[in-house]
Parts: sequence; C-alpha cells; structure tokens
Amino acid sequence: MRIEGKEYRTIWFENNVVKIIDQTKLPHQFIIKDLKTAKDAINAIKVMEVRGAPLIGGTAAYGIVLAIMEKNDPSFIKKSSEDLIQSRPTAINLKWAVDRMMKKLSGVNNNELLKVALDEAKAICEEDVKFCENIGLNGLKIIEEIYKKKKDKVNILTHCNAGWLATINWGTATSPIYHAHKKGIPVHVWVDETRPRNQGANLTSYELNEEKIPNTIIADNTGGILMQRGEVDMCIVGTDRTLSTGDVANKIGTYLKHLRRRIMMYLFMWLYQVLQ
Amino acid sequence: MRIEGKEYRTIWFENNVVKIIDQTKLPHQFIIKDLKTAKDAINAIKVMEVRGAPLIGGTAAYGIVLAIMEKNDPSFIKKSSEDLIQSRPTAINLKWAVDRMMKKLSGVNNNELLKVALDEAKAICEEDVKFCENIGLNGLKIIEEIYKKKKDKVNILTHCNAGWLATINWGTATSPIYHAHKKGIPVHVWVDETRPRNQGANLTSYELNEEKIPNTIIADNTGGILMQRGEVDMCIVGTDRTLSTGDVANKIGTYLKHLRRRIMMYLFMWLYQVLQ
Repeated sequence: MRIEGKEYRTIWFENNVVKIIDQTKLPHQFIIKDLKTAKDAINAIKVMEVRGAPLIGGTAAYGIVLAIMEKNDPSFIKKSSEDLIQSRPTAINLKWAVDRMMKKLSGVNNNELLKVALDEAKAICEEDVKFCENIGLNGLKIIEEIYKKKKDKVNILTHCNAGWLATINWGTATSPIYHAHKKGIPVHVWVDETRPRNQGANLTSYELNEEKIPNTIIADNTGGILMQRGEVDMCIVGTDRTLSTGDVANKIGTYLKHLRRRIMMYLFMWLYQVLQ
Repeated sequence: MRIEGKEYRTIWFENNVVKIIDQTKLPHQFIIKDLKTAKDAINAIKVMEVRGAPLIGGTAAYGIVLAIMEKNDPSFIKKSSEDLIQSRPTAINLKWAVDRMMKKLSGVNNNELLKVALDEAKAICEEDVKFCENIGLNGLKIIEEIYKKKKDKVNILTHCNAGWLATINWGTATSPIYHAHKKGIPVHVWVDETRPRNQGANLTSYELNEEKIPNTIIADNTGGILMQRGEVDMCIVGTDRTLSTGDVANKIGTYLKHLRRRIMMYLFMWLYQVLQ
C-alpha cells in the first residue's frame, strides 16, 4: 500500500538486510529500519516496532534468515528460533512461522541453507499477501451489494488496526475497504481510536489517509449511537483467533460492536423456537 | 464527601467569597479557589473548573450573589445573569438556577437583596444535596438486594463522572455507592476512563479513592466483556436529561452499556406479543 504516494510492504529483504517500518513512530514519523541480526528481529517484535499477528509471523521468518547469515551453525539457529518464539508468546503466527521455517530447513545442506530460508520467508510473506487479497475480494462483494442498494457512500466501522500495517500488504479487516476504494465505490471509515493503545487513531487512520480514503477517528464509545442512527452500514474487525463455531477472540471492545447485531440474531432465534 | 480525610462540599460561601475546588487540576492537585466576582463564576463554568449540571447550577446561583456584592445595581445584576446563562448554554441547571434567583429577587428592596440572594443560593445547594441523598437511599435498596442474594462484593460499573464532584455532595450515580459503603456493604466499582475527556479516570476514581472505596479504572471498551462474564452486578450512570418515557440522554458511551439489558427487554417484548 502507499505511504507518501509510494508503494510499500511492511517488511522486505534488500541489500542483505531486512527492512521494516518502525510502527512505534507512526503517525508522526515514517522511519524505515534495518534488521541485521536475529536479535534485531526479536527486539522489533518485543518493542512493537512490528505488530499484528501476520507481520510478526513474517518478521520471525526473516529472523531465522538473519540468524543463518550471522552464524551458519545449527545450535545458534536453534537457539535463535527459540528466542524468537519467546519474543511474543501470544502471537500464534509467530510460532507457526518459526516452526515452518525450521521444518523446511531440517536436512538441508549448509551451503544451501540461506537460499532455502530466504525463499521460505518470502513464500510465507507472499502467501499472507494472497490471503489478505482474498479476504478483500470476498468482502468487496458485500460492500458492492450495500452500495448497489444504498446508491450512496458506504460507512464502515473498524476497531483497532487490522490494516495493512498489521500484515504484509492489504490488511485483513481493511482489505475489503481498500479493494472497494480502488474499484471506485465511495467509502467512509469510522475509525475507533482503540484504547488503551490507540492503534486505530495512530495506525488505521494513518494508513487510510495515505490511501486517500475518507475517515473519521471516533472515541470507542461512539459506535453505538452511530449504529442506532443508521450511520454505520457495516462493521469489519480483525480476529486474533477464530473458532469453527464462528466465535472469535479479538481486541477488547470488539464484543460491544457486535452486540447490536446480536439483538437481531436473538430475536430470530426466539421467533423460530416460539413459532415451531 | 471526604478529600484527604476532611469533609468538603464542591462549593461554599466563606469570608465573603465563594469557594470551589478547581476540578481541572484533579486528580494531581487539590486546589481550593476563590470566586470574588460574577466574572469569576462565569469563567469557572467556562473553563470547567466546575462541571456537572447540578454544580454548574449552584455556581450560577452564587454568581448572582457575587454580582450583587460587586455592584448592587439592577442593570448590572441583569447583565450578569445573562452572561451567566451564556457561559454554558447546554447545562439546563444553569438557566434554571439563574431564573429562579432572578424571580426570587424581583421586587426585593435594595438593602435586603444580598441576604435574600445568599439564602436562595444556599437553598438551591441544600436542595440538590437532598435530591442526591434521596437518589442514594433509593439506589441503596437495590444494592442491598443484590448483596443479600450474592453474599459477596457487589461490582458496580459507572461511566463518566456523575459523582459528588458533579453535584454539591453525594453525587447522583455514585450516591447509592457511597450509601452502600457507609452501611458496610462491600462494593467494588469499575470506572470507565470515559473518553474523550477522561472524567472517569480523573474524577470518579479520585473521589472513590478518597472515600476508600475499591475501584478499577478500565478502558471504556471493557464493560461488555465484564458483563458477559458476570463481573458486573449493576450499572449506574448519570443522565443529562430524562424523558417521561424513561429515555435518557447522557454522555457518549452510555448507550453501549445499556445494550445488554436491551437484549433481554426485547426478548420479553417479543415473547409477550407472540404469546398473546
């Protein structure tokens, strides 16, 4: 996605270093930072220079690449992989990415190790971009339907940052919004500031602005009254975990955004039972 | 109520000046400020040194007293009353208190004007204390019932500051909590930080701490999950306006706290209709 008019990803490999955007400085400063060692990658995850489960996964994968470049030694690589997993125990993508890298590398010749690791880290990132793109194309259909009926600007509420800054590109919750915008559908985004760490105000609004998508930062409390007044056509949020039952775990506050829909759902469930 | 172990009201008349607590400095500094002129009263309302509808009303009433002390001249008093009303057009108690003062003063002899005004301002404040006390005694019954059933600490959620700092004493939403605490019922208060101006974090938590009532400041988003988990026994909030239908207008975010109860209410309404 664009920052200052130029296309970026949140992480990439260039001139034998890993490049990231230092997200602790956004929205006030746009700083590209070099990661040169596995320790740099671990630190970037710890201090939240990179955050968001998919991006943490990508950073961890590149962390293994950096470890190999530092010291092509099995026990050092193993130790680095363990330290990487410890850097943020709650992010599921982290362990998943490290495990995938280590599995791929097992049995590979020393002189091929770096190439295989680099290809795998790139593959992990490319896959994530594809996932996000597909989320976008699926969500786009829903936005298109709303737009066809409403024939006016589609208002979308989002909470926290499940934007492209949390992934490699496109984002998860924001991907349908970016796809709709690129297709010329007029959208406006209500951005929850997202207490206590303000990822909505600091990151989501920033990336929407850079893509020139109209948006308004609101106190997290505001969503209810906006929905009551019909000023929210759709609510899209990320999910830290999704169960097969459809239940999701996500950032504090997601539940309150969901409640109004539950009122309707409960009504239908009751009606169904009572009329049976 | 107590601050640093001593009983205070939010406004009082002493040594020919009106004393207030400068609420813009709380919770970091406890500063008592003198209001000596009608202009001081107007400014205190404008810059939110005093806030909360009942306290604004009391301050406006004393503003008329200060105007008379400055210059016992009908046109000056009239002009001051108009300026007071303009100082915060949305606070209904303000206009109500000024109108009541001016009505009381109409036809009073010049040499009795100050005494009549002072008595009326005091009466307005005393009445408000009585209102708040009655809110407390009524609410206390509900807390007692919950405690009798639960036989354990009663968890109460509140939003914004409808505490004693918003009134003259006791508060509105907090009055039942203070009454329960004084009666020895164990209570714990979930204090919404209350974005965007943080009155919960800055004021409600402060006054509860001074009364030694256990409380926890939470991000406004947190109430939903706490309710879902049964960790909220009761939610008490203030109201800026209350209609005869039972609808209330209050600080942004109140609606979201209310939604979970609505789910139940809607269910009962439907069931009633369907089974008829």
